[in-house]
Amino acid sequence: MTTQSILPLAVSYDEYANHVVLIDQRQLPTRLVQINYDSAETVAEAIRDLVVRGAPAIGIAAAYGLAMVAKQHRLSEPDVFTAAIYEAHTILAASRPTAANLFHALNQVLAVVMKEDQAPPDVVAERMLAEARAIHAQDMAIGERIGLYGADLLHDGAVVVTHCNAGALATGNQYGTALAPVYMAARQQKNVQVFACETRPVLQGARLTSFELAFNHIPVTVVCDNMAASVFKKKNPDAVFVGCDRVAANGDMANKIGTYGLAILAAHHGVPFYVCAPTTIDVACPNGDAIPIEERHDDELRTMWYQHNMIADEAKIWNPAFDVTPANLITAYITEHGILKPPFDFKKGF
Amino acid sequence: MTTQSILPLAVSYDEYANHVVLIDQRQLPTRLVQINYDSAETVAEAIRDLVVRGAPAIGIAAAYGLAMVAKQHRLSEPDVFTAAIYEAHTILAASRPTAANLFHALNQVLAVVMKEDQAPPDVVAERMLAEARAIHAQDMAIGERIGLYGADLLHDGAVVVTHCNAGALATGNQYGTALAPVYMAARQQKNVQVFACETRPVLQGARLTSFELAFNHIPVTVVCDNMAASVFKKKNPDAVFVGCDRVAANGDMANKIGTYGLAILAAHHGVPFYVCAPTTIDVACPNGDAIPIEERHDDELRTMWYQHNMIADEAKIWNPAFDVTPANLITAYITEHGILKPPFDFKKGF
Repeated sequence: MTTQSILPLAVSYDEYANHVVLIDQRQLPTRLVQINYDSAETVAEAIRDLVVRGAPAIGIAAAYGLAMVAKQHRLSEPDVFTAAIYEAHTILAASRPTAANLFHALNQVLAVVMKEDQAPPDVVAERMLAEARAIHAQDMAIGERIGLYGADLLHDGAVVVTHCNAGALATGNQYGTALAPVYMAARQQKNVQVFACETRPVLQGARLTSFELAFNHIPVTVVCDNMAASVFKKKNPDAVFVGCDRVAANGDMANKIGTYGLAILAAHHGVPFYVCAPTTIDVACPNGDAIPIEERHDDELRTMWYQHNMIADEAKIWNPAFDVTPANLITAYITEHGILKPPFDFKKGF
Repeated sequence: MTTQSILPLAVSYDEYANHVVLIDQRQLPTRLVQINYDSAETVAEAIRDLVVRGAPAIGIAAAYGLAMVAKQHRLSEPDVFTAAIYEAHTILAASRPTAANLFHALNQVLAVVMKEDQAPPDVVAERMLAEARAIHAQDMAIGERIGLYGADLLHDGAVVVTHCNAGALATGNQYGTALAPVYMAARQQKNVQVFACETRPVLQGARLTSFELAFNHIPVTVVCDNMAASVFKKKNPDAVFVGCDRVAANGDMANKIGTYGLAILAAHHGVPFYVCAPTTIDVACPNGDAIPIEERHDDELRTMWYQHNMIADEAKIWNPAFDVTPANLITAYITEHGILKPPFDFKKGF
């Protein structure tokens, strides 16, 4: 018998209260707090404010949010019901512009409305919730599969570099994407240690990756992003694992700002660079140049955690939230369908 | 007639009060405050606590600190005088292990004691102060020369990337080293803009480079260190200028953590990478592997400006303050003697 720490899932649905339940990731690593949400507006705000983040988790949260609005209007007239859903869809879709999962998940739940347009609202609402639950269940299977495929790449004693947080907290499951191979290798009794880049400006690596790995007893060392090159040079890492927010048809992918630079550093030092990717492929997007890059507010850089002014008032700020890593810097995609190597061609998805 | 903002020098000496005067750089960009120091212990503490930082400024501060102690003991017996100076030398030399200028400057001032061992203490003390002033005067000449040589590389409209702060605040002069070409190009009526990496963990780029460039009306945009790769890809920079803390005989050099990664990114994007170097060459050091790298306290990463805990308690921290950039990633050294290109051989200094 083995014991295991169980971190609550980052996103879940409380059917009794009809609430979307999120871990408030802004309060980590200090406090582990869950918040209940009861409207599309507040779920969208939670996504925008990074209460929940990570492409898979955002998709699941948005899917539940849309199903929740449907349930709230299940006794309304069909016209009112449909209008409420479309309004909620618009609100949720506008919350983060770069995350492909958000649109996929929302559209998948919305498709139920279109398919079931003769059914009474309460039936449609039930089916929408079932669809959101199916998205969540699929995410759970993906985490486990990516973990199993990825763990085969890790020997006992392996050293892994990761960026941002693409762990359990970024998904709806206990493995995550980029950290899934690490967790699975640990379950297979391999010793694995992780170097986590802190991931400025919002420090998801420092705050979230360190928290969930430590919570699960995986040795983790946090470094500033600008120390990654020294990690490659001095700590002999075996692999880089990162998640991604959107994959273009040619294999280029968008992920948290800093991923592109990390891929260049990995290539320079001959360390394989793996992208752990659930179904975030945007087959309509030919290459990375076509992926829109969200730019966030100056204050994320200008102040140190919204308290001290850290930059001269007259200085400008550039704060892109994502960057694009070209396919030629990616060793392989670790997917729920196996390990895919170049040349990538995702025109039809995985 | 042109008007010019005059920022006080980062380090100076008040002969009337016999004080070392430093801008307290920990308080920038919010407050511009000078602090007077009257002992070797407090000057060493100021160096260790980053009140003053930057290899040239540290060297000048330490030189003045040693001369100050000599002046304080100028009426003592020769034995007491000499003992006080050697004690101060030991205290000052231990303040930062990576900065070669510190040892050079201290030894240059100490050499006066050894050369003048028959002279009375008050005469030796005067000559030590003159030596410290000579080190400072040489720094002023170096800043202007590096500026003139480097400005020739910048066309009107040039975009420059820099890391950390190797500007006026890092030296004893108004030009600095890495920013000297920028200031000189601006004096030559060229429009130049700078992208400054914020430079975690102590944010010298965000706090200091943004402050002094804005103070001097040079357009500056601050980015997180992990956005540098995107700056190279999207902002078409013409050059990278960085300072350095120590140069080995083969041309490898140590500078603020993150410089090595930036050099790899510059090479990947075909952008020239210039090191603006005053006399920091350590001819006794064959290559970068022989340069000791200072590791600083966990709290610089663990807390956000010493207030909030940002990293899980159980996570480890690795906090190297410097890294080594190999000579093969350096396009040229811009020195007070001209622009030196590979193959570098600094066995005899510049």
